[in-house]
Amino acid sequence: MADINHRVGIKSSPEAIYEALTTDAGLAKWWTNDVSGAGDVGSIIEFRFNGGGPDFIVKELIPNKTVCWQHSGCIPDPWIGTEILFRLEAEKEQTFVRFTHSNWKEATNFMAHCSTKWAVFLISLKDSLELGTGTPFPNDVQIDHS
Amino acid sequence: MADINHRVGIKSSPEAIYEALTTDAGLAKWWTNDVSGAGDVGSIIEFRFNGGGPDFIVKELIPNKTVCWQHSGCIPDPWIGTEILFRLEAEKEQTFVRFTHSNWKEATNFMAHCSTKWAVFLISLKDSLELGTGTPFPNDVQIDHS
Repeated sequence: MADINHRVGIKSSPEAIYEALTTDAGLAKWWTNDVSGAGDVGSIIEFRFNGGGPDFIVKELIPNKTVCWQHSGCIPDPWIGTEILFRLEAEKEQTFVRFTHSNWKEATNFMAHCSTKWAVFLISLKDSLELGTGTPFPNDVQIDHS
Repeated sequence: MADINHRVGIKSSPEAIYEALTTDAGLAKWWTNDVSGAGDVGSIIEFRFNGGGPDFIVKELIPNKTVCWQHSGCIPDPWIGTEILFRLEAEKEQTFVRFTHSNWKEATNFMAHCSTKWAVFLISLKDSLELGTGTPFPNDVQIDHS
């Protein structure tokens, strides 16, 4: 098994970050502009990128602290069985977001691509909250020419 | 053990990327502007950030394909025993850089911070080669407010 780990510190409250992770409007500001279904535990969130994209079932929510999604469906194939966890921790003037995308079967090129891309999207989350504008798909930072 | 994995695709030749990974002048364009000692296998490269920073011994070089460094010295402590590997693979109009920083004892907050920061620096490497200007320290993209 292999995991992706990231951590960013955002000058924002846990409440504001939690909202950005748990509502369609919030998620649309930093990951993809085409998202629907965010809600309570058991909700299935559909993230779309040019029509296709992954679904996640909301597995655990601790308000302003923890957001956990479990991959649902079969797209993309290497994400089957993986889980995404956001943990929020306020510290002085910032809130840290500790991110894990875990349970990858192996550290493939695609997993490495996703690791870099998650960093880009977490910085987009940071920018959306600090500057008012993130770079969700289709305006996301490109890390290759594929 | 835990590893950091990343992958970026750069519109540049393996030769140009290899130079950016194996010379002081090249490394100074994307990681830190204060670097010295880059050279053949056995060289110790000193990367400095406001005076302090890690040393790496060049462990393996395959021209235009592989660059491997082994951490040397005792700063930062969690990096002791870790290894950094860059593998270059040309594909159509781009060259992929597959990056691994491996052998972390555990996936701590600091390891997660370094994972995000490596993504930032690999995009700096990409920008330095594609646009002519990267964002090495002290002009690096900030991912928190520490």
